[in-house]
Amino acid sequence: MDREVDRAFAHDGTGVLAMEAYRQMGNPKPARPETVSIIYDHISPANTSHTATLQKELREFSAAAGFTLTDVGGGICHQLMSEGRVLPGEVVVGADSHSCTTGAFGAFSTGVGATDMAAIWAEGSTWFRVPETIHIELTSRLPAWCEAKDIVLSVTGKIGMDGGTYRALEYTGDGASTLSMAGRLTLCNMAVECGAKTGLFYADKTTQKYLAQYGHTIKQQEVEDATYCRELSVDLSDMEPILSVPHRVDTVAPVTDYAGTLLDQVFVGTCTNGRYEDLERFARIVRGKQVACRTIVVPASRAIMQKAAETGILADIIAAGCMVGPPGCGPCLGMHMGVLGEGETALSTANRNFKNRMGVGAEYYLGSVATAAASALKGVITSPEGAL
Amino acid sequence: MDREVDRAFAHDGTGVLAMEAYRQMGNPKPARPETVSIIYDHISPANTSHTATLQKELREFSAAAGFTLTDVGGGICHQLMSEGRVLPGEVVVGADSHSCTTGAFGAFSTGVGATDMAAIWAEGSTWFRVPETIHIELTSRLPAWCEAKDIVLSVTGKIGMDGGTYRALEYTGDGASTLSMAGRLTLCNMAVECGAKTGLFYADKTTQKYLAQYGHTIKQQEVEDATYCRELSVDLSDMEPILSVPHRVDTVAPVTDYAGTLLDQVFVGTCTNGRYEDLERFARIVRGKQVACRTIVVPASRAIMQKAAETGILADIIAAGCMVGPPGCGPCLGMHMGVLGEGETALSTANRNFKNRMGVGAEYYLGSVATAAASALKGVITSPEGAL
Repeated sequence: MDREVDRAFAHDGTGVLAMEAYRQMGNPKPARPETVSIIYDHISPANTSHTATLQKELREFSAAAGFTLTDVGGGICHQLMSEGRVLPGEVVVGADSHSCTTGAFGAFSTGVGATDMAAIWAEGSTWFRVPETIHIELTSRLPAWCEAKDIVLSVTGKIGMDGGTYRALEYTGDGASTLSMAGRLTLCNMAVECGAKTGLFYADKTTQKYLAQYGHTIKQQEVEDATYCRELSVDLSDMEPILSVPHRVDTVAPVTDYAGTLLDQVFVGTCTNGRYEDLERFARIVRGKQVACRTIVVPASRAIMQKAAETGILADIIAAGCMVGPPGCGPCLGMHMGVLGEGETALSTANRNFKNRMGVGAEYYLGSVATAAASALKGVITSPEGAL
Repeated sequence: MDREVDRAFAHDGTGVLAMEAYRQMGNPKPARPETVSIIYDHISPANTSHTATLQKELREFSAAAGFTLTDVGGGICHQLMSEGRVLPGEVVVGADSHSCTTGAFGAFSTGVGATDMAAIWAEGSTWFRVPETIHIELTSRLPAWCEAKDIVLSVTGKIGMDGGTYRALEYTGDGASTLSMAGRLTLCNMAVECGAKTGLFYADKTTQKYLAQYGHTIKQQEVEDATYCRELSVDLSDMEPILSVPHRVDTVAPVTDYAGTLLDQVFVGTCTNGRYEDLERFARIVRGKQVACRTIVVPASRAIMQKAAETGILADIIAAGCMVGPPGCGPCLGMHMGVLGEGETALSTANRNFKNRMGVGAEYYLGSVATAAASALKGVITSPEGAL
């Protein structure tokens, strides 16, 4: 289908590539510049003069094109899009693979390459093959020590890294409605980890209430009759804390299988788990204690960091011995700020543990915020059961 | 003179070099490991796998040697040494040129090379040629819109970048006693910018009160009769906001001479001006307003960041649109986190503006915290007079 794009965004990395492609297209007048966001998050602030010079060029290009630019310290593109810039039913494209995140609002939200993004800047529209849908019914409610992250790691293990290729993952059921927007964003964020085009929740009361904070009044979406290519059901009350073990996201196991594994670093943040709710949960576990290995906490946006500073949880996290980094992607992509050394092992709340991504010759596990907190306190992989 | 060293420290950069030298010496048993600190601040957290691997090696070496290591997120070595680790009368050596900072406590505190540091680890002592002293008498009191930074930029302009070579700068007078410990640390920090071996204040009531926070009871020092190689007098009531202009620290001018110069970035932090008092002063000016250019604020230590989070000034700084980075050197040395691009211009509260240091092909001005705050709000160099 050909579709007008309601929101388009790129970050400092893909933005530079899209800018180059746009120039090769003859630098046309953008179709609808008011729908375009450029958000600096990947190497933010710049790690070298070369990066800084490219970022300067993109700033100037963006200003000339009439795009909205969020500069260093603003936060991660997917988080900023989720702070009132995406509404149910919209078509949203981002020049980043995790652009499926805001499917949590009942939008069609997906990632495109940088050259596609340049074409979208020029035309204001694009086309998609309509994906088949995998239906995932969530029933019941999570135990206190589990999170949306455990659900999505478990689902990714079941579907596999290419089991969702060019499909949509649709989450419904009474279990889905118990999840906060933060939890839904975590689930949709990782849809691409099994190759899916997007993740989807229907907009409900929780979505309404969340978007009302940003001044939006929205209608709830009706769950539609549909034909699914596959159906899964997950009983949330059966969930246990899950890890993805090196070096594939779909290689998952209960945290208890790896308990006691020595950790050099714990990292809490990213577009998967750097939200206020995540930081609050982390602070609840580490408050008044000291972490036993180096621990890096990176809020996903300025608004989150500001709220954490205002409510006191940022002070609690710092007092527990953590390093708090500036809003952005932090060490997730291994470009700066907390890269791992050869032979080091880490636990991260991010969405990918591909070999060498977060550090050449390093190993890292993916887990929930509670697993990260319990593990940071011990310096070894630790189940959060009992910590909450 | 031969002297036992009371405190020795190195950071992640020089620590790795000292470790190499130490191994070439045959890895002897350290004389007094309890006096040695290793503090990760220069590239903290690691920017690449290579850096991370070196940091891992230094961690292991330090643990085996029985040194005290402060890992990423702890803060800048000079600031941590000033948080109760240096006492009046001590001999303190750091493998960093700004180790003159803690002369502010009436200690003899100076920088050494990494190979000298290795010898000090092995022997517990070193030797110095006793420096001649330049006496700087401070009289009266600063106007509200001026700071210790303006004094030291003005003094550096008068003495010149090599006018203090292998000399000590001794600050006395009724004006000296009006300065807080933070202000004195700023003055002593920049002693090396005119080539001096150290900067010195006599320990007085302010020093006593400051060190009491860390559980130390100290005696005040008597101002001694001495022969000086040069005498300067600075009337603080005449002070005006001063800038050091690119690319020499001793090329100084009133801020008003450069008012209106367009800024791409403002940076507040470093061992010169990243203390709580500095952040508080910055917050007082930007509170409730929005910065007009990208602005990076980096607390000098975890304790400072924690206090700023607890008192609410961190939230104010974030709300004003600044990026807050993790405790450490930040962009000061141009290694990561806020490096400038080609053709960019910045204002920094750091101590050095050597060509290409903070970014290849960039220019930057050094100024006070108030000048940085007033300038960040306008996006151009702005005198803080009237902002306070």
